Amino acid sequence: MSGNTFGTLFTVTTFGESHGPAIGCVIDGCPPGMELSAADIQGDLDRRKPGTSRHVTQRQEPDTVEILSGIYEGKTTGTPIALLIRNQDQRSKDYGNIVETFRPGHADYTYWHKYGIRDPRGGGRSSARLTAPVVGAGAVAKKWLQQQYGTVFSGGMSQLGNIEIPFQSWEHVKDNPFFAPTADAALIAQLEDYMDALRKDGDSIGAKIDIVASNVPVGLGEPIYDKLDADIAYAMMGINAVKGVEIGAGFKSVAQRGSEHGDEITPEGFVGNNAGGVLGGISTGQDITVSIAIKPTSSIRIPRRSIDKNGNPVMVETFGRHDPCVGIRATPIAEAMLALVLMDHALRHRAQCGDVKLG
Amino acid sequence: MSGNTFGTLFTVTTFGESHGPAIGCVIDGCPPGMELSAADIQGDLDRRKPGTSRHVTQRQEPDTVEILSGIYEGKTTGTPIALLIRNQDQRSKDYGNIVETFRPGHADYTYWHKYGIRDPRGGGRSSARLTAPVVGAGAVAKKWLQQQYGTVFSGGMSQLGNIEIPFQSWEHVKDNPFFAPTADAALIAQLEDYMDALRKDGDSIGAKIDIVASNVPVGLGEPIYDKLDADIAYAMMGINAVKGVEIGAGFKSVAQRGSEHGDEITPEGFVGNNAGGVLGGISTGQDITVSIAIKPTSSIRIPRRSIDKNGNPVMVETFGRHDPCVGIRATPIAEAMLALVLMDHALRHRAQCGDVKLG
Amino acid sequence: MSGNTFGTLFTVTTFGESHGPAIGCVIDGCPPGMELSAADIQGDLDRRKPGTSRHVTQRQEPDTVEILSGIYEGKTTGTPIALLIRNQDQRSKDYGNIVETFRPGHADYTYWHKYGIRDPRGGGRSSARLTAPVVGAGAVAKKWLQQQYGTVFSGGMSQLGNIEIPFQSWEHVKDNPFFAPTADAALIAQLEDYMDALRKDGDSIGAKIDIVASNVPVGLGEPIYDKLDADIAYAMMGINAVKGVEIGAGFKSVAQRGSEHGDEITPEGFVGNNAGGVLGGISTGQDITVSIAIKPTSSIRIPRRSIDKNGNPVMVETFGRHDPCVGIRATPIAEAMLALVLMDHALRHRAQCGDVKLG
Amino acid sequence: MSGNTFGTLFTVTTFGESHGPAIGCVIDGCPPGMELSAADIQGDLDRRKPGTSRHVTQRQEPDTVEILSGIYEGKTTGTPIALLIRNQDQRSKDYGNIVETFRPGHADYTYWHKYGIRDPRGGGRSSARLTAPVVGAGAVAKKWLQQQYGTVFSGGMSQLGNIEIPFQSWEHVKDNPFFAPTADAALIAQLEDYMDALRKDGDSIGAKIDIVASNVPVGLGEPIYDKLDADIAYAMMGINAVKGVEIGAGFKSVAQRGSEHGDEITPEGFVGNNAGGVLGGISTGQDITVSIAIKPTSSIRIPRRSIDKNGNPVMVETFGRHDPCVGIRATPIAEAMLALVLMDHALRHRAQCGDVKLG
Repeated sequence: MSGNTFGTLFTVTTFGESHGPAIGCVIDGCPPGMELSAADIQGDLDRRKPGTSRHVTQRQEPDTVEILSGIYEGKTTGTPIALLIRNQDQRSKDYGNIVETFRPGHADYTYWHKYGIRDPRGGGRSSARLTAPVVGAGAVAKKWLQQQYGTVFSGGMSQLGNIEIPFQSWEHVKDNPFFAPTADAALIAQLEDYMDALRKDGDSIGAKIDIVASNVPVGLGEPIYDKLDADIAYAMMGINAVKGVEIGAGFKSVAQRGSEHGDEITPEGFVGNNAGGVLGGISTGQDITVSIAIKPTSSIRIPRRSIDKNGNPVMVETFGRHDPCVGIRATPIAEAMLALVLMDHALRHRAQCGDVKLG
Repeated sequence: MSGNTFGTLFTVTTFGESHGPAIGCVIDGCPPGMELSAADIQGDLDRRKPGTSRHVTQRQEPDTVEILSGIYEGKTTGTPIALLIRNQDQRSKDYGNIVETFRPGHADYTYWHKYGIRDPRGGGRSSARLTAPVVGAGAVAKKWLQQQYGTVFSGGMSQLGNIEIPFQSWEHVKDNPFFAPTADAALIAQLEDYMDALRKDGDSIGAKIDIVASNVPVGLGEPIYDKLDADIAYAMMGINAVKGVEIGAGFKSVAQRGSEHGDEITPEGFVGNNAGGVLGGISTGQDITVSIAIKPTSSIRIPRRSIDKNGNPVMVETFGRHDPCVGIRATPIAEAMLALVLMDHALRHRAQCGDVKLG
Repeated sequence: MSGNTFGTLFTVTTFGESHGPAIGCVIDGCPPGMELSAADIQGDLDRRKPGTSRHVTQRQEPDTVEILSGIYEGKTTGTPIALLIRNQDQRSKDYGNIVETFRPGHADYTYWHKYGIRDPRGGGRSSARLTAPVVGAGAVAKKWLQQQYGTVFSGGMSQLGNIEIPFQSWEHVKDNPFFAPTADAALIAQLEDYMDALRKDGDSIGAKIDIVASNVPVGLGEPIYDKLDADIAYAMMGINAVKGVEIGAGFKSVAQRGSEHGDEITPEGFVGNNAGGVLGGISTGQDITVSIAIKPTSSIRIPRRSIDKNGNPVMVETFGRHDPCVGIRATPIAEAMLALVLMDHALRHRAQCGDVKLG
Repeated sequence: MSGNTFGTLFTVTTFGESHGPAIGCVIDGCPPGMELSAADIQGDLDRRKPGTSRHVTQRQEPDTVEILSGIYEGKTTGTPIALLIRNQDQRSKDYGNIVETFRPGHADYTYWHKYGIRDPRGGGRSSARLTAPVVGAGAVAKKWLQQQYGTVFSGGMSQLGNIEIPFQSWEHVKDNPFFAPTADAALIAQLEDYMDALRKDGDSIGAKIDIVASNVPVGLGEPIYDKLDADIAYAMMGINAVKGVEIGAGFKSVAQRGSEHGDEITPEGFVGNNAGGVLGGISTGQDITVSIAIKPTSSIRIPRRSIDKNGNPVMVETFGRHDPCVGIRATPIAEAMLALVLMDHALRHRAQCGDVKLG
């Protein structure tokens, strides 16, 4: 209940801090009999890990995962699957100057007031590094969902600052450092230049990420209150730096009429997907479509006003290794969160209603 | 785990359907010793109830609440507080024509596929009528939060379709049928005309609602994963018809630089509130600011394509009594949901860290 | 988390106090599509209700149940099933003399210290009257388990004070006022005389109750920590006045050797049932066998030493209407609790492992 | 919900199998600011570890604990505390002969039927080795409870097979290999001889263990249904091999009259403790007294009838390294479980009612 467990039936309990000896998680509730090895998990961890381009933090972490339990002869046994990732590149000295002050936009102020103590090394528990175990757990959920229902996850960046990124194909996401679903080389170059300039300024920028789950069974979601979209909103808003979540038409719904918004149904299926794949809190079998707003990184080199623990005014500049746009690495994280939500609801559905069917 | 309970320490378990004998809830975890009577709850129920203007459904429900338990000599005892609201104005015949078909935009299709059975009378459990018990429970949470911390809740409509409603003061919300925070009579008249025309068209429209909690203690929220903002997103997305949720700057964050977004801190307090009162998932003591997008009502008189249970094409027109803009009555619901989240986190904070302090 | 909800997937949230307007519960997680009416529930409520013989409390409560939700056209819909029982025979004056004092053996002292307030009328929430909603919920679980797996529940008294009641057949339980599984008329007469003498003395007595579930599927129970036997122990110890719980051989295991205790297995099945139907926390498919120790009623007419709220010594005699042996009515309660545990674990099993099979 | 998490606010999620690479747990909800190091935990782990006398299993495991998270500069931060214990002495070959058969009294049969797969190496997850992480977590709870309330835990063996061990003092428990609370050298010698003979026979024996918590605050426990005694019963019955649980007078209550059982109260405190420190599910401030029945070890060398996976009859003899009486090492485990329950309820009490007071 301290909140470090995600999910109700397929649960992920994470532990660790940015500069502690290790991070990891315990995955509980995985159905037995599924083939699983570290290789199934490492792929998504590698997509998320730092240091893969000059546009993200240069902290060197291989994020190699060790499975400590829950597997026998290559298969899940139904018992908890513990994942362990040793931290390799802690440089606590980088953060020495922030121990006594509260960095604007960071959790420093709130952790201090909540707990009366905080681990300032790299943001401690509030670091985005803690998304790694979740990505690992998400890979387990993805594999199960893929095997059971053929569910697949896609995602990428649709906006960086003021630069919109028109969607071409999820195929392109892996071909550029931004998870941009485009093959437009000029646009990619524009994004590169934008990021280079930003880094030179010592500033940061926000981003918008879109996530889609396809081949989702009909019937997932508990209509009051653990609606599928409510749990997705919870999952997404729980990712570091997220400030907004949309399902389907999202905020466009505000200006829509009912005769436009409500997706008609024909014998061939739904016409349109303003619903984003969820009606009444339950999946329709259409694609689940989600967008999230990610705020600019709070760690910037530009001096900012703040106070120290004693309430005295100070100026804060944040050096060290940071992502100038945390949105860049957010795609695999958001995919993982969505996978965890769907996995959890697949098991919940099975409990009350028996097994689900494809839409 | 079927989702009908909201909250973790201060929990609300609701029951009932739109046209069943009664709706209600069991509120569990309320601290003992607080004075409480039905009058404390009835006020918010009256703000939400139908039939209060021509712009909302004409179903006549007094929504009179009976407290069945948990009170002794006018005070809470720490035991469950059960609220009962008898349904008065069920006209099941209104809905006879929709038993065999799936109304576009409604939960008909998904309930049918999930459960294999659905109560079609007035939408059954998926009806917005089920927000009444939550509003009742929210009134209990509001009272406790007000007494403990002076926390107050405000909210209103900031956009109806394409019509933006510039904020003047929460004071005005009670003076017009739209919960519009404005005293601009011309604007109110415009909204009235707009709704009258819409009703004549047999169509419906979306809306945007803003909610604010003030005098919130510092330190509420469990940083991973039950962040305060994550739980708020969950609560808001769980309200019928909500398709998007923003905290603080929300989707504006996408185009913001870190030097703009991160709220500076001075000895006098925070400068700006792009954070919306939450940093790292924990309340800062500033106002909690939330915006939600509400889709247009799915029940419209305009004929729409759909299918019946056998997959045959049909045209659906939805008569009966409906809100042409469900956003109109959403403000007290969203306030209640926010109050429930804050109440829950106040108790959670107290469990691990002892009592909270005002920011 | 205030504890008023029983179960994890099939949950029962109760409300009410002995002398409040009503008691009841919300049953959540029931699979959809099961035929259910009040008549299915009333039977077990009638077995538990007071006033059925001179050996139990003379409070007159018909305990007529009203189903408020969750049923459509005679079938469960998968939404919460709310049960309401109006209290009819509250005589709060009976309890006027105990408001300021703590009755020995009662919850008066602890409620007062925990909550700082307590409803003294009939014991308030700590009254055994609150077992009625659980019995109602248990009837729903029994019906589902019977339909799915043929599971049946039996139980009765095996000891009253020092009088042991040798088991003959569960058939006889309904034929005497003690739920004694015997047709030995002389023994029944002995029990009657014993109770009559006890009532004349103004004293009370303990009892031992045995409960059995037959036709239980193999595989129910989460081995660490929600073992089937752990959850049964929790359920049984949660019944008012229970001080001890045994599964299978229970305390006899202490003096057993492994070569005697461990039930051998043959192609025809297990030889013996020292395990009580549970190995490693998971059901074996054999009968689940449980015994519970029920303490003597704390409300007795014999004067006893106690203190008042101010710590001053007082003598307490408890008049009013009480069961001289609360064990007499405990059988349907214990059956209901066992049914709730098995139902919950059946759904939990289904979530992770798919549907269960009979042993 | 797969049951691998213990507790509601102070939670322990364990992972690992007897012969996997590691076992461990994540402790969540620990209040911040408490000094904690591995040394605080190692002491109880050493009391539980195998190989400390000839009367327990000879598996050599140092059970050295590593704290992976949740501590900063020697203090808890309020974030999850992960404990890791590497397995050192796995000899999977010892268990080769049991892969295809179900050992009587063991979880082999039920795991196989539940999950369709099982890790047979040393009992896999069902091994009593998995009590080590719980003992580690219990040490954290003990420290906090000791600091907050002065709560202390004691426990020991009161019966081994048919040999009763009269209580002298908890002081003596550490001075003999049986956790016997006696300084009677002749009795200890009798126990030694008994165990030696048993080992020669290749058989095993049951035991009874008593546990006491002193200096427990008044007011712990949620009266319906998470009563303190119900949660204790759940915790105790969840320990491997436990078949019975008593609180206070336990099964003696059956033959007691109310005038004997109900503990009178005087201005100086309670007279007697038949209640075992719990009334109405809430702690009274008296000692919490618990007794548990532990069945004889199922792994014995004496041949026993069983079946293989195909249902064919086989004879099973279990060689390898086993405790001939699992009750011998049960005392620190039961103490830990009791500490976890009290810790959890202390936080739960604080959430709803504010901080507790000593009785």
